[in-house]
Amino acid sequence: MTSAPRTRVAIVGSAGKMGQTLVRLANEDPECELVAVLDQGDAMSALAAFPGAVAIEFSSPAGTRALAEIAPSAGVSIVSGTTGLDDVAVRALDAASRTVPVFTAANMSIGVHVLGVLIERAIAMLGPGFDMELVEAHHRRKVDAPSGTALKLASIAQAARAGTSLVHGRRPEVREARSPGDIGMHAIRGGDVIGDHTLYLLGDGERLELTHRATNRDLFARGALRAAKWLATQPPGHYGMEHLVGSAVP
Amino acid sequence: MTSAPRTRVAIVGSAGKMGQTLVRLANEDPECELVAVLDQGDAMSALAAFPGAVAIEFSSPAGTRALAEIAPSAGVSIVSGTTGLDDVAVRALDAASRTVPVFTAANMSIGVHVLGVLIERAIAMLGPGFDMELVEAHHRRKVDAPSGTALKLASIAQAARAGTSLVHGRRPEVREARSPGDIGMHAIRGGDVIGDHTLYLLGDGERLELTHRATNRDLFARGALRAAKWLATQPPGHYGMEHLVGSAVP
Amino acid sequence: MTSAPRTRVAIVGSAGKMGQTLVRLANEDPECELVAVLDQGDAMSALAAFPGAVAIEFSSPAGTRALAEIAPSAGVSIVSGTTGLDDVAVRALDAASRTVPVFTAANMSIGVHVLGVLIERAIAMLGPGFDMELVEAHHRRKVDAPSGTALKLASIAQAARAGTSLVHGRRPEVREARSPGDIGMHAIRGGDVIGDHTLYLLGDGERLELTHRATNRDLFARGALRAAKWLATQPPGHYGMEHLVGSAVP
Amino acid sequence: MTSAPRTRVAIVGSAGKMGQTLVRLANEDPECELVAVLDQGDAMSALAAFPGAVAIEFSSPAGTRALAEIAPSAGVSIVSGTTGLDDVAVRALDAASRTVPVFTAANMSIGVHVLGVLIERAIAMLGPGFDMELVEAHHRRKVDAPSGTALKLASIAQAARAGTSLVHGRRPEVREARSPGDIGMHAIRGGDVIGDHTLYLLGDGERLELTHRATNRDLFARGALRAAKWLATQPPGHYGMEHLVGSAVP
Repeated sequence: MTSAPRTRVAIVGSAGKMGQTLVRLANEDPECELVAVLDQGDAMSALAAFPGAVAIEFSSPAGTRALAEIAPSAGVSIVSGTTGLDDVAVRALDAASRTVPVFTAANMSIGVHVLGVLIERAIAMLGPGFDMELVEAHHRRKVDAPSGTALKLASIAQAARAGTSLVHGRRPEVREARSPGDIGMHAIRGGDVIGDHTLYLLGDGERLELTHRATNRDLFARGALRAAKWLATQPPGHYGMEHLVGSAVP
Repeated sequence: MTSAPRTRVAIVGSAGKMGQTLVRLANEDPECELVAVLDQGDAMSALAAFPGAVAIEFSSPAGTRALAEIAPSAGVSIVSGTTGLDDVAVRALDAASRTVPVFTAANMSIGVHVLGVLIERAIAMLGPGFDMELVEAHHRRKVDAPSGTALKLASIAQAARAGTSLVHGRRPEVREARSPGDIGMHAIRGGDVIGDHTLYLLGDGERLELTHRATNRDLFARGALRAAKWLATQPPGHYGMEHLVGSAVP
Repeated sequence: MTSAPRTRVAIVGSAGKMGQTLVRLANEDPECELVAVLDQGDAMSALAAFPGAVAIEFSSPAGTRALAEIAPSAGVSIVSGTTGLDDVAVRALDAASRTVPVFTAANMSIGVHVLGVLIERAIAMLGPGFDMELVEAHHRRKVDAPSGTALKLASIAQAARAGTSLVHGRRPEVREARSPGDIGMHAIRGGDVIGDHTLYLLGDGERLELTHRATNRDLFARGALRAAKWLATQPPGHYGMEHLVGSAVP
Repeated sequence: MTSAPRTRVAIVGSAGKMGQTLVRLANEDPECELVAVLDQGDAMSALAAFPGAVAIEFSSPAGTRALAEIAPSAGVSIVSGTTGLDDVAVRALDAASRTVPVFTAANMSIGVHVLGVLIERAIAMLGPGFDMELVEAHHRRKVDAPSGTALKLASIAQAARAGTSLVHGRRPEVREARSPGDIGMHAIRGGDVIGDHTLYLLGDGERLELTHRATNRDLFARGALRAAKWLATQPPGHYGMEHLVGSAVP
């Protein structure tokens, strides 16, 4: 009996925290073979030496675009966890996905993906009588508020209920009751919180609170490796968490 | 232009707290006409004087059965919120539903129903790597633990994941780690808590917490009146919250 | 054996929701005798007919001032739950308290008072390594944000740690990490939430969450009646929740 | 200007997870000098070669006792985080503390200590009208329930209110309302939860929820190192978290 071949993995952007975690976890994972580690100074074209590898990349929209442009000729698949992708980067990824498998997710956690699905279902079933407020918490050094994940969840909420708009915090000088279409957005910052997100659905006499908590910094790197292992067996195409969730990959 | 006819409502079991709330809310509701109020001493056959009414009943399995047996000949529909219905009562309701519309729900809150749907979806998507624990809280006078609603939610969880069993609390003398198939059940009792329910889905590096809070004692009576108004326009059949949720009734 | 005399109570401002609740609860309370109910149109001087009574007042700073000016000559004690008192009103209350007992609290709940004490203690013990964020939730019709109680709790936090300032919500256009001295203030609005307040103390590797939830709209009226009964046996002076808490009054 | 001397630290029981973390953090800490690492096989008498060191020990009551017996003659101070100490171990520590400084805490987190103080204060202020329930959550492999920290917090609650007793979980076969003196104990188990503890104080119309969350496994080792650095400048005596909290040690 032969064991399954290991997934060949290349880490792009190894200098950052996420890159270091990816390198550590890929080295620890018996189902992965870490074949390349590219630093910021390395030319993306170096990937051409590793056809069949899955390149994992958490960098910037420009970095994602550069990877997407080289991937088809290099013969590497792409797992990208970069947030805030612009249209140029998205088009480059779409183009690449006609030749190689591409997986993108702004949040590699299965739990956050599931929360998004639950939010959509809850809003559809509850109807307009339930006000929506989204509260998230992150560590004290985070400069953006709300988080990219909070914005993604809010966009799901907005797609599920017409006529809504985001209200970022409430201030003393505005003495007005909320509008039914408001989605209040609240960004708690402090300590070393990895990432909590709660959607409140506040009705008459009852409420729902749907919460996800990330409790380990490795969560997102682990999710990226799981995506890489799954992607290694897929045909070309542009995939996301919705394809991974429910598959047999542990 | 003529306004919609009011729903004729009969309250069965008016002596209890729920009965009193139903009488009060039915009297306040311009879309309802309270035509009869039956106390425990009254014969169920008195309903025969109110054909076309919807009888709302929160009593006991025996009371539900008695109502189900008289309803078809009396020509009244049934909204039953009685919990712990036995097979005899369920068969009586099924039989009645061939002649008159019957609506049953152990919990008349839309939010609790939605929580049940979300629990089913979350478990299916997350897979077995997430441990399940269900925590509920109710007021200090409640004698049953866990609550009927907690048991209903647990049964949804058990249907969604094979091979699970309920563990009611954990005690110091059992020094054993949880089994993967355990669903821990925890019943908080104190104060005047109306009813909180949370399913925890605890994974590696992340968790989901799905919570419903009932915040007003009128919630369940209001839900029953909403069900009654909806039921008044339905053909014979046995209905539940899944039919009401998503309908246009506010 | 003779029973204790009932506390004579006058409700000032009976038209509002709080006034109506006070009237109902005072009528239900065997230890209270409701001797007068003053509407907005009634002259405050009418209280002169009820010497020995405790006047309970939840109105406006102007209303509080008017009551404080008449109370000494009328011989009535004062329980005031009015929020946002200005200096003029406070001086009037202080002046009155030299002749009659005066009790003031922006929040008549014992639990909120205790939360304030715990916040002060926690901040003093934890030291500056724990970031502070205050989250409150209220119903969809509330026009002020943050709540008066949240501002009161924040002022306690500010007194307990030097060099802090309030930050009301966070917005996408400000791309800056929090300052160590920031106290983030977050006002959730929706449904019929009566009032939740949580102080988060977020440190490295750990956090504290100190929460109060009001779960019944009668809470504040009940607290005012309890204060009135306690005040009836006190000498002239200006009292607050810190005097009531820990006393034998149930 | 001379810098402060580094605290000489010896780690006793280096094989376990906690021991490994202590070794790593002590090596990273510029204020610490790791002078000795004792494995289970090493004789405790080896500590005699490191007078002036602070021995940090998370092992078993027997290990604690062995350390306490050798510490005075070896001239080493003791920081012990061992839980479930029996009378023999406690007496040995007390005896040692007459010659060398000894620091013991079943939980080295400042936050948990503060939670204990807040619980004591809250119970004293709120009086008997608030029911107490304690909920804790830990990872799926933990075999004891409730946690040692939960038992410690419960003992604080019992000291603060006379006539209470612990109720470990609630089961369907007991159909009885809670007694006013009950403290409900609930142990959630699942995932990789490091340690959450909440005391609920449930009253009429309001409740308090006092929560501590440990969010990083290094928390307890960090607390032990902080205690070691503080202890290095103290005279002989038996110290605990109450001495450390409020001191100037960061």
